[in-house]
Amino acid sequence: MDDVIVTPIGVVHGDITTRDDAPKNYSESDRSGTLEIYPRYGDGLDGIGAGQTVVVLFWLHLADRDRLKVYPRGDRSRGLRGVFATRSPVRPNPIALSELKVIARDGNRLQVTGLDVLDGTPIIDIKKKIDP
Amino acid sequence: MDDVIVTPIGVVHGDITTRDDAPKNYSESDRSGTLEIYPRYGDGLDGIGAGQTVVVLFWLHLADRDRLKVYPRGDRSRGLRGVFATRSPVRPNPIALSELKVIARDGNRLQVTGLDVLDGTPIIDIKKKIDP
Repeated sequence: MDDVIVTPIGVVHGDITTRDDAPKNYSESDRSGTLEIYPRYGDGLDGIGAGQTVVVLFWLHLADRDRLKVYPRGDRSRGLRGVFATRSPVRPNPIALSELKVIARDGNRLQVTGLDVLDGTPIIDIKKKIDP
Repeated sequence: MDDVIVTPIGVVHGDITTRDDAPKNYSESDRSGTLEIYPRYGDGLDGIGAGQTVVVLFWLHLADRDRLKVYPRGDRSRGLRGVFATRSPVRPNPIALSELKVIARDGNRLQVTGLDVLDGTPIIDIKKKIDP
């Protein structure tokens, strides 16, 4: 299969501006911010509102795509592990996945909590959460 | 943000060959098959083994990328909804997300259950599942 092209649908606005300040993942985050969805994709938000939890995919534009092994959570005592066995941002296709709670919606802007990505991170998809 | 390039890391081998035969999502699927990860990405699998549940991202290469509203599950009685409020394969970046149980591993091939995508679907990422 050939490479494919992914087009960002929006961008994150938040107060996480350094990797050291970013929570390890959404389940450990109480950080809030805004998902700005570009106007041409606004119709795709129909049905999303406050109180819902949504699954959001991000493109980690600053991540290293060339390493296949990492120290999980930077802890060298546990040794190297394959990136596919971790949630590290390091991976061939640096897509991140968060489950975020929608606090409010104003048109194409979703206020959310649970953010674990940097301000300015591109958004590439939003999905309904499947109840476990 | 400009478009980004995603490179498939592997491909699905399974017995789902038509969309009508595909389960609506992984939580409703008992279908098994194999995730073949290409040799150059094999090191990334270190730490993945039988019994684990992994999060897998697929590129739905046959999906329509141009529509922003769909009838959820094809049920017209409930009206159109924005694709980002659904799990429809139709969406600007047709990435699918499944949680799959690893039944066995043989090198770069993972036998899994819970498949809901067609035979031949490209795999673009695998992640550790976060315990809820």
